Amino acid sequence: MRWIRFTVDGQTSYGSLDGDTVTQVTGEPWAEPQPTGKTFKLDAVKLEVPVVPKTFYCAGINYATHIREMAAKRGVEPQFPARADIGYRANNALVAHGENVVIPADAPPKINYEGELVVVIGKQAKHLTEANAFSCVFGYTIGNDVSERTWQRGDRTFWRGKNTDTFKPMGPYIQTEVDLDAMETVVRVNGREDLRFKTNDMIFGIAHYIAEMTKYLTLYPGDVIWMGTDGTSPDLVHGDVVEVELTGLGVLRNPFVRATA
Amino acid sequence: MRWIRFTVDGQTSYGSLDGDTVTQVTGEPWAEPQPTGKTFKLDAVKLEVPVVPKTFYCAGINYATHIREMAAKRGVEPQFPARADIGYRANNALVAHGENVVIPADAPPKINYEGELVVVIGKQAKHLTEANAFSCVFGYTIGNDVSERTWQRGDRTFWRGKNTDTFKPMGPYIQTEVDLDAMETVVRVNGREDLRFKTNDMIFGIAHYIAEMTKYLTLYPGDVIWMGTDGTSPDLVHGDVVEVELTGLGVLRNPFVRATA
Repeated sequence: MRWIRFTVDGQTSYGSLDGDTVTQVTGEPWAEPQPTGKTFKLDAVKLEVPVVPKTFYCAGINYATHIREMAAKRGVEPQFPARADIGYRANNALVAHGENVVIPADAPPKINYEGELVVVIGKQAKHLTEANAFSCVFGYTIGNDVSERTWQRGDRTFWRGKNTDTFKPMGPYIQTEVDLDAMETVVRVNGREDLRFKTNDMIFGIAHYIAEMTKYLTLYPGDVIWMGTDGTSPDLVHGDVVEVELTGLGVLRNPFVRATA
Repeated sequence: MRWIRFTVDGQTSYGSLDGDTVTQVTGEPWAEPQPTGKTFKLDAVKLEVPVVPKTFYCAGINYATHIREMAAKRGVEPQFPARADIGYRANNALVAHGENVVIPADAPPKINYEGELVVVIGKQAKHLTEANAFSCVFGYTIGNDVSERTWQRGDRTFWRGKNTDTFKPMGPYIQTEVDLDAMETVVRVNGREDLRFKTNDMIFGIAHYIAEMTKYLTLYPGDVIWMGTDGTSPDLVHGDVVEVELTGLGVLRNPFVRATA
């Protein structure tokens, strides 16, 4: 099943998506949604980010090639993570499918994409095991963890390098059933394929992350976990359009523009 | 004016607090709240955290003595922050005044308090200057940035060291007017004063942080900025009770208990 969050006539709600027909519901799709009786055509609604999480989790480094290539770019030895220590991103930076990523006028030029699988939590969960970790997962969507590498390396935190407004595109929809092992992540820049990798080829998988995290923290419905990315991105410039496609999850497409002052 | 968030008869809402009388309102105090006509005695309601922020900001290191004493404990040179790079904490960890801080059974023993001034945002804001930064501030409350130092230093992120469930007490209320320059932070452990410092003696002040942050990010109503702490804490153990008092903001009091399994 496929869910979108959308705005029509100034009201934001969820709806199930079947072909190009949106069936509006009240409440959230993981909380016994009720049909309102209204349907819309997909092209008649404004897509929103599929959820604004209570806590926005992000694995960061979680694929081997990404770690090797990023280290090579910086001329340092690759450092593989010893444990599944989860990181964070910030809600201010979220934008929907189709919206602009706005590069600040004073940002250095190392603007990179990172195409990521996003896990959407549907049930409150603590002390899960790898065997039952997926019981709290509602579905999946796509994230683009846009990063400015000079700020990422030079600042004490990721506040500008990762969490500048518009640096976290997420969408277009939440899919409840996927085949993780068959899934591929494909990133296109201006229509040309730039990167392709097996989505589930993670250093620490989804079940392991959820089991580790829930030893110490409670996951809540609507929380998201961005699972990291493989490979590396070229430096993006004003006018570039980045599409992140994941098998079964559609395409997350965002133009990049540089602010003029 | 003083605002609390509270639950009574299973319903959570805001109310203004005058003496020990709570006047319930609909909506949030920064968004044209309307009285419901109901009042309660303070001791008849359950206090909640004053706000669950959209984004939970935290300055981290922002006082000179804290930096010097923490460096001395670790046997390293003190490192003062070059710029006001804001950090983050996570909503899962929030607990209210009076609630237990639960130390996980397997946590190392370096459990510390950090008594902090919390700025509560009331208006959406971007591109503020130091001169008009306070225009987005609704009020102030108290935070205790509980930390386990072994995890904080050894993990790749602050996920366990700072964001374990219950490690972020906040409250008891939001006060809209304060005298920042007269304010003192006092921390008591088991009723005995352990630390006292001038709250506004920050390396980077509130106006500077807000001006820097809003160059790149939008602040939203309900966002909070925890401003950091001075001094250092003893290692806390099961049964300790920590009170953080800030002049004009009351006392945030939380028992610490260690889980048994």
